Amino acid sequence: MTAYAHATEIVDTLIEARWIVPVEPRGLVLEHHALAIDAGRIVALLPQAEARTRLRARKTVRLPQHVLIPGLVNLHTHAAMTLLRGYADDMPLMDWLNQRIWPAEARHVTPGFVRDGTLLACAEMLRGGTTCFNDMYFFPEAAAEAALRLGMRAVLGMLAIDFPTAYAADAEDYLSKGLAVRDSLRDQPLINFCMAPHAPYSVGDRLFEQVATLAAQLDLPIHTHVHETRAEIEESLRQHGVRPLERLRRLGLLGPNLIAVHAVHLEPVEIELLALHGCRVAHCPVSNLKLASGIAPSAQLMRAGVTVGLGSDGAASNNRLDMFREMNLAALLAKGSSGDATAVDAHAALRMASLEGAVALGLEREIGSLCVGKQADICAVRLDEIDLQPCYDPVAHLVHAAGREHVSHVWVAGNLRLEDGRLGGIDVAEMLDMANLWQNRLYSGFVSGGELECAMHDRRTGLTTW
Amino acid sequence: MTAYAHATEIVDTLIEARWIVPVEPRGLVLEHHALAIDAGRIVALLPQAEARTRLRARKTVRLPQHVLIPGLVNLHTHAAMTLLRGYADDMPLMDWLNQRIWPAEARHVTPGFVRDGTLLACAEMLRGGTTCFNDMYFFPEAAAEAALRLGMRAVLGMLAIDFPTAYAADAEDYLSKGLAVRDSLRDQPLINFCMAPHAPYSVGDRLFEQVATLAAQLDLPIHTHVHETRAEIEESLRQHGVRPLERLRRLGLLGPNLIAVHAVHLEPVEIELLALHGCRVAHCPVSNLKLASGIAPSAQLMRAGVTVGLGSDGAASNNRLDMFREMNLAALLAKGSSGDATAVDAHAALRMASLEGAVALGLEREIGSLCVGKQADICAVRLDEIDLQPCYDPVAHLVHAAGREHVSHVWVAGNLRLEDGRLGGIDVAEMLDMANLWQNRLYSGFVSGGELECAMHDRRTGLTTW
Repeated sequence: MTAYAHATEIVDTLIEARWIVPVEPRGLVLEHHALAIDAGRIVALLPQAEARTRLRARKTVRLPQHVLIPGLVNLHTHAAMTLLRGYADDMPLMDWLNQRIWPAEARHVTPGFVRDGTLLACAEMLRGGTTCFNDMYFFPEAAAEAALRLGMRAVLGMLAIDFPTAYAADAEDYLSKGLAVRDSLRDQPLINFCMAPHAPYSVGDRLFEQVATLAAQLDLPIHTHVHETRAEIEESLRQHGVRPLERLRRLGLLGPNLIAVHAVHLEPVEIELLALHGCRVAHCPVSNLKLASGIAPSAQLMRAGVTVGLGSDGAASNNRLDMFREMNLAALLAKGSSGDATAVDAHAALRMASLEGAVALGLEREIGSLCVGKQADICAVRLDEIDLQPCYDPVAHLVHAAGREHVSHVWVAGNLRLEDGRLGGIDVAEMLDMANLWQNRLYSGFVSGGELECAMHDRRTGLTTW
Repeated sequence: MTAYAHATEIVDTLIEARWIVPVEPRGLVLEHHALAIDAGRIVALLPQAEARTRLRARKTVRLPQHVLIPGLVNLHTHAAMTLLRGYADDMPLMDWLNQRIWPAEARHVTPGFVRDGTLLACAEMLRGGTTCFNDMYFFPEAAAEAALRLGMRAVLGMLAIDFPTAYAADAEDYLSKGLAVRDSLRDQPLINFCMAPHAPYSVGDRLFEQVATLAAQLDLPIHTHVHETRAEIEESLRQHGVRPLERLRRLGLLGPNLIAVHAVHLEPVEIELLALHGCRVAHCPVSNLKLASGIAPSAQLMRAGVTVGLGSDGAASNNRLDMFREMNLAALLAKGSSGDATAVDAHAALRMASLEGAVALGLEREIGSLCVGKQADICAVRLDEIDLQPCYDPVAHLVHAAGREHVSHVWVAGNLRLEDGRLGGIDVAEMLDMANLWQNRLYSGFVSGGELECAMHDRRTGLTTW
């Protein structure tokens, strides 16, 4: 296959790879091809022999045992919560929240916490081939600072919750703070925004309507948790007389700009409802199992035509920000829970972790596949390790045999951020010291945590916040 | 905690580690302790300061950011099938077997295939912290050759099937070949044996009875696939009028030496039956999902008192031989499928991947935990990587955050087999060439595979062989 954007002769970077899996068109695997980058975008995809005669590159990267794929898109995370990685495991959801997560957040979450936690998250994600993440947390300006420092693409949630936290006092305050951050960062091409009403149990009808109006005015996606647990649905039935999705429908929230996170517990009619309105789903298979929420019907959603991307959720409930793990588990669970071994084949799983995420974010014209004209957000995976031998099918290997440890190179908007497994732009020792400092602070918080006031706990519903 | 076997003054090796998780006693985490090895066995476990004054070591290994755990035990695999890694994915079970796996095996499985495939498997497993594997495949003498070359502990199945293959002509031939291999390797301390009747659908009543008699006479475990798929159970009901486990009970196979592999589809009464007879289960969570067999009720089995170890199954149906992945998925699935986030906590998952496997193999006095007097089969995992920060609980990290890529050192019977991530005793380039050679042969097999006679296919039942 040969594709040119225009008759480029000199390009910034030429990557020659053993395999290229562009994700679009579906199922295509190119062998011994090259990808050319100029001014941050993909400008050509062509056989290596042809590239050598037709293009002159300022830099050539030869990856003779590697497969190039689009940079992966993490469709749902709370990046700063890396600082709470493993802080509370093997606990029932309400104990986990009441005794550990909320007290820690009430005491520690500041712009500094968010910046440092997101730095750690960005380092982990970039090393593992993720180039874009969709974040929902307090102090998004601090998350932006971290993403920009490591040169990573981010979609930041403009958080909306109907109770006060250290970040904002009330609904109006949340919205105005979110809008102000968006204004201040409008010149940053790597930073995008979405509306982030937290969840049906933490957001009232009026705030949801305001969010829907703003999202329509500003042409933004709406990123919200929904149908994560049975308890959430029962609470909605008690309080609103309908299940959360039906409530969102009545409030005008369902549409192609809705990213419904988790969507674990769905009746067949709700799958149809999501499909009918063109909603998107962020499937978080590891988090849903670890918190014992259940298994989302991802194969049924996809069969109904719903776009399903993948999210890691926060490190407190996972405990890795690892899209290779999510991709693998998404494929395995779809097969194991449906009884159909053909469900979510390797190409489909890779597409969920890349293009489907980009579509959900409204960024499919910019990222999510290796197509001429798109941003050069690229991940290279080396397949010449002993534990990946032999290799009959590089796409099967990406999903079922390889892991993020095999990621060798990552580019974001044409800039090389990971080279031979080493991250640029960070001092590893400094990062470890920083993590250690927060660990010591959080340990002390843990000792007295039970006595602290917990700003994040919705006392009315007693339900999950993250 | 301080424990001495005897008043050793000079020891072969002293390992000083940030954390040691001995697995026995349950839940214990030692900090800043040392483990002493002499003559291949663990001879002391004591605080580092004390070790420095009381012991003189020929070699000291300092692991200041690492956690020491027992070498992991892979309770069910077909090691040589690494050569079929990714050879056939995303296919329904019967197509997978009929069109891909059996034709490939019929054409290619020779002692050379088994030796080379098992070499690749042992390299992968050792690098990932696995020190012992329970194998079921043809030509076990070739598997032994590979395990011994890399200094790995193996339990080899003496295979029994009621139809001919390239390995053996009939039931008597299988048994006599197995016994001969066992005799020839009786002086190898790293090699153990078990009886391996393939599965209820491929082994007749008479052969099962012979296996049970031999196992009793020779004091060996019996390793067999059972209740992997619904089809297997339906076939047994048609052919024998009872479900496979009830048939095994009537044939006298149920007992503490039975390792029931998969055990996915179990009625509550069958869980009680396994518990009552003291049977062991090899839980293979990745394989069961990938082949769409289902989710084994591991938490219920453990609550009933059944010993449940973990297996990777073969690389053709996984596609990794990775006990960290199995440990993580075992914990996640137990939580997600039961709705109980406390099910299979991190200590329990680690115990499944180590001590429970050793118990199932009847080797718990030799391996499976870091206790004074046991063989020094040890795995060190480094926890100072960015993607493992911060670290509040090293055991939670082992199960939920770390992966086999963090394994730094492995000892088998006191011999260092992996050092700083590098395997001793193998030439990596040679191993890659060998894998490539088999890949080329199998590619040609793939092209004409459909035309080949398939010795492994049980035409009576049309059921799975591996």
